[in-house]
Amino acid sequence: MNHVLILGAAGMIGARLAARIAENGTIGGQSVDRLTLADIIEPAAPAAGDIPAALSVQTLAADISDPETAERLAGLKPDIVVHLAAIVSGEAEDDFDTGYRVNLEGTLRLLEALRDTGHAPRLVFASSIAVFGAPFPDRIPDEHHLTPLTSYGTQKAICELLLADYSRKGFVDAVGLRLPTIVVRPGKPNRAASGFFSSIIREPLNGDVAILPVSTEVRHWMASPRAAVGFLEHAATMDTERLQGRRNITMPGISVSVQEQIDTLRDLAGQQRVKLIRHVPDERIAAIVAGWPRDFNTFRARSLGFTPDANFAEIVQTYAAEEGIRL
Amino acid sequence: MNHVLILGAAGMIGARLAARIAENGTIGGQSVDRLTLADIIEPAAPAAGDIPAALSVQTLAADISDPETAERLAGLKPDIVVHLAAIVSGEAEDDFDTGYRVNLEGTLRLLEALRDTGHAPRLVFASSIAVFGAPFPDRIPDEHHLTPLTSYGTQKAICELLLADYSRKGFVDAVGLRLPTIVVRPGKPNRAASGFFSSIIREPLNGDVAILPVSTEVRHWMASPRAAVGFLEHAATMDTERLQGRRNITMPGISVSVQEQIDTLRDLAGQQRVKLIRHVPDERIAAIVAGWPRDFNTFRARSLGFTPDANFAEIVQTYAAEEGIRL
Repeated sequence: MNHVLILGAAGMIGARLAARIAENGTIGGQSVDRLTLADIIEPAAPAAGDIPAALSVQTLAADISDPETAERLAGLKPDIVVHLAAIVSGEAEDDFDTGYRVNLEGTLRLLEALRDTGHAPRLVFASSIAVFGAPFPDRIPDEHHLTPLTSYGTQKAICELLLADYSRKGFVDAVGLRLPTIVVRPGKPNRAASGFFSSIIREPLNGDVAILPVSTEVRHWMASPRAAVGFLEHAATMDTERLQGRRNITMPGISVSVQEQIDTLRDLAGQQRVKLIRHVPDERIAAIVAGWPRDFNTFRARSLGFTPDANFAEIVQTYAAEEGIRL
Repeated sequence: MNHVLILGAAGMIGARLAARIAENGTIGGQSVDRLTLADIIEPAAPAAGDIPAALSVQTLAADISDPETAERLAGLKPDIVVHLAAIVSGEAEDDFDTGYRVNLEGTLRLLEALRDTGHAPRLVFASSIAVFGAPFPDRIPDEHHLTPLTSYGTQKAICELLLADYSRKGFVDAVGLRLPTIVVRPGKPNRAASGFFSSIIREPLNGDVAILPVSTEVRHWMASPRAAVGFLEHAATMDTERLQGRRNITMPGISVSVQEQIDTLRDLAGQQRVKLIRHVPDERIAAIVAGWPRDFNTFRARSLGFTPDANFAEIVQTYAAEEGIRL
């Protein structure tokens, strides 16, 4: 029986993972008897009707930039910690000190607090493809160096190194996952530079206009929310001996061009939907996107049992099914 | 005119760099009017007769693990900081907390203090090939990922990421140098696992017995003390625009096998000297050495003007000349 603690449980991926654990009473096939959901604002619990009687769910507000939080959370003695809490990329870039305080010091304090418990819990850490920075080869291999071009990517890369060393010492049993850009994100358009990858599918399916700020030749590395939750579940319960000390893994996304996204939308939902995409070039966004990875060779993740989406059509179909949109 | 601050100036490389600056009144061809030498114990100043009148030399004791030290040093407003101060590999491995406090927190505090001065000094940081960990290809390319297998290597890799991000933000103007193993180290045999690479040359040249604990097929990545000082001088004054944001560089050592070391000793000093090398296999040392890099492709460093030793014979000849040993 396992006690799972999710940090960042109010976020889109955290909430989905929580819902899945509550629904199944398991994570990655292992039974869960206690689920603690923490975020900077107290997260919602999964709907009561979905929670098995044998599963105890607790929610709490916890700011990991607060020095006492890590000790309080580690004191709950979780067996599995899924650490998704972070200041996002744009904010970490604008506010250097807050980014380092939350994304680096917060994680370092968590590692120290888990070390102090002496029982080396599994720690699943959400890293990001932002640890990579241009120039890089078209297909980035598993052995490619990390040269982040943002403070956020730097903080994630440092945390990767820390969790490898803390694991080598036996203080935690960690796995770091470099998550692809999550597409299709549900909800409203946001101002993230990557937002259009979701927007050009989501808005037309809702009958709304979407803005495409870049060329249709742009290619990017994507995974569905469902695939991302699957990565976290697998990392929570996999045999970490198989990592042979290399604790950080680039997750298998799929490499999709904007043109392929549009073609998929046309195939599944018709040309009328595609007409809702307006091409309004934005040089600032184009310049940012030009520094992002386009494709990876994720041989390692696949051989370790991480399962990517089958193709972009499946991503769109799953999104539509989850949102109750008929294609 | 420049004020140069050397942290770790009591060490072998720091003292040599200080002596060279004092002798020439320059670093990397640029004039120096002030030289501050700091170490955890107050370092010796270069011999007074060697110091030009236009150069002011100050020595001081400074423990970079002390929270106030970084501010005090940054308050001296150096134009160029050469940061060589660190807990060494074996000690950082045995004492996890001290290693992180000195090698990570100490450097982070230095970066913060230099940032606070607002004048973005050049910072030359001594990283190490310990940032790499097996398995790796026979010749490690410039784009190979960092997977350190020690806490020391982890701390150096984290500092590399920090100085790249602090430089990107314009807080410092940093260059990180991954130094090869320094051979021939003068002085007494020490207990470092890498000590034999120096010992099998140094002891026979002194007429003493040397112990070789590994096979003669072992190959390693080496640079002379003179080459290492040259790397630091070049990094102190190079045009950092040429780095294009990639602030950390694997220095050009030379890849030499133990057999080649022995053959060189024979060529230069005769078979009688070689007979002083006793082969006493040590499985523990052999296992450690098996995880070390053997060879690199350092195209980048060479194209940026870092100059390696010509060959191992030159390393031995320079050592002998410096120590007053006739070959």
